[in-house]
This record gives sequence, structure tokens and C-alpha cells, in this order.
Amino acid sequence: MRTFSRSQALFERAKKVLPGGIPGHQDPRLLVRGQSPCFIDRAEGCRFWDVDGHEYIDYMCAYGPMILGYSHPRVEEAAQRQRQKGDCFNLPSPLWVELAEYLVNLIPSADWALFGKNGSDAVNCAVLIARAYTGKNKIIKAEGTYHGIGPWCTPNPTGTTEGERANVLTFPFNDIRTLVRLVEENRSDVAGVIITPFKHEFAHDQEMPSETFLNGLRQLCNADGPVLIMDDVRAGFRLHMGGSAEYFGLKPQLSCFSKAMGNGYPISACLGTRELMKAGKTIFFTGSFFTSAVPMAAALATLMEMNRPGVLDHLFQIGEMLKQGMLKQAESFGLKIKYTGPVTMPFMTFKDDHSFEKNKTFCARAYQEGVFFHPSHNWFLSAAHRKEDIEETLEATYQAFKAVKESFGS
Amino acid sequence: MRTFSRSQALFERAKKVLPGGIPGHQDPRLLVRGQSPCFIDRAEGCRFWDVDGHEYIDYMCAYGPMILGYSHPRVEEAAQRQRQKGDCFNLPSPLWVELAEYLVNLIPSADWALFGKNGSDAVNCAVLIARAYTGKNKIIKAEGTYHGIGPWCTPNPTGTTEGERANVLTFPFNDIRTLVRLVEENRSDVAGVIITPFKHEFAHDQEMPSETFLNGLRQLCNADGPVLIMDDVRAGFRLHMGGSAEYFGLKPQLSCFSKAMGNGYPISACLGTRELMKAGKTIFFTGSFFTSAVPMAAALATLMEMNRPGVLDHLFQIGEMLKQGMLKQAESFGLKIKYTGPVTMPFMTFKDDHSFEKNKTFCARAYQEGVFFHPSHNWFLSAAHRKEDIEETLEATYQAFKAVKESFGS
Repeated sequence: MRTFSRSQALFERAKKVLPGGIPGHQDPRLLVRGQSPCFIDRAEGCRFWDVDGHEYIDYMCAYGPMILGYSHPRVEEAAQRQRQKGDCFNLPSPLWVELAEYLVNLIPSADWALFGKNGSDAVNCAVLIARAYTGKNKIIKAEGTYHGIGPWCTPNPTGTTEGERANVLTFPFNDIRTLVRLVEENRSDVAGVIITPFKHEFAHDQEMPSETFLNGLRQLCNADGPVLIMDDVRAGFRLHMGGSAEYFGLKPQLSCFSKAMGNGYPISACLGTRELMKAGKTIFFTGSFFTSAVPMAAALATLMEMNRPGVLDHLFQIGEMLKQGMLKQAESFGLKIKYTGPVTMPFMTFKDDHSFEKNKTFCARAYQEGVFFHPSHNWFLSAAHRKEDIEETLEATYQAFKAVKESFGS
Repeated sequence: MRTFSRSQALFERAKKVLPGGIPGHQDPRLLVRGQSPCFIDRAEGCRFWDVDGHEYIDYMCAYGPMILGYSHPRVEEAAQRQRQKGDCFNLPSPLWVELAEYLVNLIPSADWALFGKNGSDAVNCAVLIARAYTGKNKIIKAEGTYHGIGPWCTPNPTGTTEGERANVLTFPFNDIRTLVRLVEENRSDVAGVIITPFKHEFAHDQEMPSETFLNGLRQLCNADGPVLIMDDVRAGFRLHMGGSAEYFGLKPQLSCFSKAMGNGYPISACLGTRELMKAGKTIFFTGSFFTSAVPMAAALATLMEMNRPGVLDHLFQIGEMLKQGMLKQAESFGLKIKYTGPVTMPFMTFKDDHSFEKNKTFCARAYQEGVFFHPSHNWFLSAAHRKEDIEETLEATYQAFKAVKESFGS
């Protein structure tokens, strides 16, 4: 039986010198208390090893970034080549231009790019530009969707002011009628509508956009309407290499990418259409490491590798294989599950498992069997996952479903 | 004569796919138009080479980060050792705890740490915690000081809302009377006072804090008063290894570090005292790359190297050597200059040179001679600068002062 004593000991030390020990999305208390790792020693391909020496096939990909798998040779080679010249300079390296040009070619809706480090940097940049372009204040977002830690959208408003949170309106995802009504009621002051390509909210089933919603968005966000901002930070490049908007036939005026863009290297980008370029020049967006060259080398290598024929197809194929395998297993145990979202970043919940207790039992057993899922956050697949890894995973999930059946009966 | 045709050609390409070409602090139009590099090929130690192949002794250190010099062997070794294990994981590496413990030991006023990527991340985190701790809204800052790109403090409010900029009061740096009056007038709603350890504002002479100001701050920010936030993002570890607050005998409740902390690797930290730890747990502060292990390995190596006996002393010695050499040269030409701020991050201006034209002439000539200064932003020295580099620099500054004398007479 796997135990996690080194993880636990480190977590106790962490709690003494870091508020909460590990705050944010990596808080191990969101996994399975006492039955999950808290710290990682090393990772390679689609696998990682925790500090207690346990190996796992990984289905979180560092919460998205590792789209090609950990330590991908081509990405690491490109990064190392730039690293020998340097990373953080007084001025950008030529990769600053090369990466912007590459993205503008890759993303049909984009004519320019601005680079930051965090997903939040890119999203906050888009909001600044939408407001600068329209001269209006209000931003409309879907209820509960995550757009980072900016005070205007943080899921936890502690420490923010009312004024920072003002000018944000919300509608239920997919509810085009409410969205249209909000835009009409606030027409004189709506700067932009920000959406994620589908709903991938923490502790919820994922929800794909309906055709009605997509059609409505296309009509609403026209030349005279609010700016459409696509927050593709989490989903970007797991649906379509032209961005998730392209997958759904949307033409956003601003798009935000990060996570998978650099296969783990810290980079984010706000991309926009030509008509917003002038507004892009008027806002202030800068940071000490925004022009660092190594993450740009990594991003170029990542995007080129992902853009090779068959790579994203492979991601869909293994995603489908995992999905079908798990659906079949659940059925064989008579367990009702929902398997939602794109197969390249799916999520599974058990029916009537509102406190995620069944999912925690499922995950705890999977950890024992050497497979890592999150009980309440969507999962991610990488191109490093091979057919054999999925087969090995399905042996683990069989045991995990069995454990749920034994503990809960259904 | 050095020309910059490759830099210019790349800048033209940049302007087509990036709003402004190179926005923010690295905008080459803030240097000397047409007579300065725009892109960098490589760097090592205290030198860099631009894309036209010109070599420079560097006095910007990537605007602060490169405190040990570019590609410092011990930092790169430590980073590489961690890189072989991996960087961006599902959970932190043990370095998460080790770096927090190291900082808590190093910085006398700190009992805990939270890590981000940008300086802005750390500063915004501190503001959240000050507001969460006090339950109050107002933040008092000095006029014109830079605290990053948060909407509450951005030097360019384009795209922000009034509500985001509300609850911020300003006083002239060093004016303790005005600060005390602001606190008294708003006592019921002042969350914190944020300062940089000295004034290092763009396009201004630097200004050290007066004893009166420091004494006033010590009295004002007591247990019942506003939270004192030290924004040491730019100056941190160039005055004192315990943080610049320690150098000036201040005990801030919150301190922010970034830039020099990781010698170019992207990392920032908000540090706080024990009484604010509970508030630190209540706020939301997270990002995709906040726990990445390689920048933590680099930060540990950087801080340990900087903490070795004599390293910071060396920085002061070469800083003093540069200062004395330049003061003497200016005097010999009969040029009136101000050489302000700590010698480890000084700035030089010419008297009555409000549009920085003399400084641009000075810098343009220095670029020709292979030395890189900024005409309107404070400079930075690194531990990689040796006595011989300063001597070589002074040969260049002699020619640069001479050029100013020839162009302007005085």
C-alpha cells in the first residue's frame, strides 16, 4: 500500500512558512486528504514520481501546460539552444518577433500579439484593451467561469474592493437570451463579453457551447457590438491549433492563451484583430520577464510540434480511447457517471456525488494503482500518452470503479 | 561607427505584429532613436551582444534581475539540476518549502512567503492581504512611484475604470507630514501604506528616504496603524541581503521581492509577518506557473551566492568606483551632473536637462564605445562587473561626457 509520509512531512513544513501550505489550485487538500501526494520529485513524458517515490501516469499535465508531456526533447532542445545565448535581457531577443509572427499565422482571428507570463496577465490585458477600444466600462462574463486572479473576476473576493468588482455582469453559460438582454440593457456601457470556449468550472461537469449560443454570439459581437474576448488560457491548443474559437466557428476580437502554449515554460499571450491594434498601443502592459527569450523558444517549439500532422489527432484518439474504456467499465459496475468536455481535457463525475466523495474514493484508489486524476478539477491529456499508457490506465480505473462500487454500492 | 540596421529591421517587423513593437519598459524609443539597439542576441557575465554584433558592458542588468550577471554558472547549474527532474508539475517540488524557509531566515521581518511570477503579482498580493487583514480599503502610496501594472496603481490608466483606481491616496515621497495627515483623515479606512525603499522613478533623479521620513514611518505603522508594505521589487538585494527595509531600519509587515531574486528566472514573492499569516490564507493567489521548480532552484542559488561574504560589498565597491570616476570626469569637463540613489543601482542626470537630450547624447556615444546605460531609467550593477570592467567603462564615459560637452557646451 502506497503511503505519503514524505509528502505529509513536507506539507507540515510548508504550513509553517507559507499561508495555507500550498494555496491555490495545487492545494493537496483538494485531492484526497492523507491519501494523495503533496509534492513531486520528478516527471517525464506522461508520468511523474512523487517525493515518496511513487510513479503515476498523469492526467493533470500540471493543470494544462504539459501538452507534449514533461521534458519533451524538442522543446527542451529549443529552450537549451536559446538558454546558451541567454534568457532575460535588457531588450527582447529576435524570438519576440518570430513568436508573434508565428501566432498571427497560426490563429486566424489574430493580427497581433502581446506577451505576458500568467494566464491572468493575458486576460487582464484583453480587458484593458476592450475598455480602451470601446471607451466603455462593463465586462460581461458567464457565472462561475474562471478568468484568473484579477480583482475584477477572482472567484474569492477577499481583499478586493467593491469598486474593483464593479462593472462586471454575469449570465448563465449558454444562456444567449440573458446575455442579449444584458447587452441591450447596458448597451451604452458594455466594453466586452468574455467567455471560455466551453464551461470548465472547478467542481462542475463541463458544458459545451450550444449551437444557439454560438449563433447568438456571432450575431451579438459584431462591429458595433461588444468586443468578444475568448479566454483560451486553459483549453487553448487542446481543441484546435487555430485556437478553440476556430473549433467552434467564432471570430473573437481578442484571444488569450497561456498554459499549453509553452509546454510548461511560463508564457501567456493576448492576441487581437487589426482594428484593436491601436487600442493595444494605448494601454500599459509590461513586466520584468515578459520578453524573456527561453519561454519563447519553448513556445515556438511546442506550437510547431503540436502543429505537425497527426499530433492533435493522436490526442483526440487516446482521449476517446480513455473515455470509451471508462464509460464501459462504469457501466459494467452499474455506476452512473458523467464524462464531460472534450476528450482531450475531460472530466468525470459520479451521479448524485455532490460532495465528490465517490470521486475521492475513485481517485484514492487510482493513486494506489499509479494513475493520477483530480476528483474535482477537469483533467488533461498530453501527446506523450500512448495507447499502452491508456491500457495501463484502464487497468487502474477498473480497480478504482470497483472500489467505488464496494464502498457506495452504486 | 556602430550602426543598428538589424535591430531596426527587426523593430519594423515587430511593429507589424505587436502593438507598439516593444511595449513597456524595453521600448527602444525610450533609448536613443536610431542610435541604439532594439534586440539582443546573447549575453554573458556583465556583457551583452546586440543583433548587429556589437558588444556592450551592461549597466541595466535586464532592468534589475541579473544581479550576479548573465548565465551565472552556479545559478545555471542549480537550475539545470532541477530541470533534469522537471519544472512545472501538478504539485510543488520540495524547493517550494526550502525557498520559503530560506527567505524567512534571510529577511528579518518575514515569517512566511507566497510566490508568484511578476513583481506585480507580489505587490497585488500584498495589497489584497493588507485589505483582508485590516478590513479596510484605502492604500496610500507616494506620488509617481511605480508598483507595477495593477489597475489600482498603473502609471497609465487607459483601459482601467474609476472604481479600480478608487481608494488610492498619494503623498509626495519623504513628506511625512502629508502622509500622517492622510492617515489621520482616513483613519477609519486606511488598509496600508506602500512605499519603495527609496524613490527610483522613471525620468527622475533618485531620492533616498530622509531620517525624518523613516522615523515617521516607524511611528505611523505600528500595531494599530496601517500595514506597511515595502515594495522591494526593483531594489531588493542591491542594498541589504535582509531586504532594503533592513538597510533603512524599517520593519514592514509585508515585503515584495522579484527581479534580482532569481537572477533572471521568473519569480516573485510576497513576504509577511506572523500576524498577517491568517489573512494570507484567506485571499486567492494562484497561477499556472507559481510553483514551477526551476526558478526556485535559481532563486535559492542566487540568494546563497549573493549572501556569501563579500559579494554585496563588491557590488558597493565597484558602484562607488563607477560613481567617483564619473563625477570626476564630469567635473573635468565642467559638466554639472546629479548622480543619485545607491551606488549599486545609481542614476545620472545632467543639470537642466529636462528632456534628457544631454543624457541621450551621452548614452548614444556610450553605445558607440560599447557601454550600455539608459538615458531616463535608473541603472543597475551586477556582481559580475569587475574592477577592469569599470576601468573600461570609464574610458567610454570619458568620450561620452566629451560628446555632451562638444554638443551642448555645458
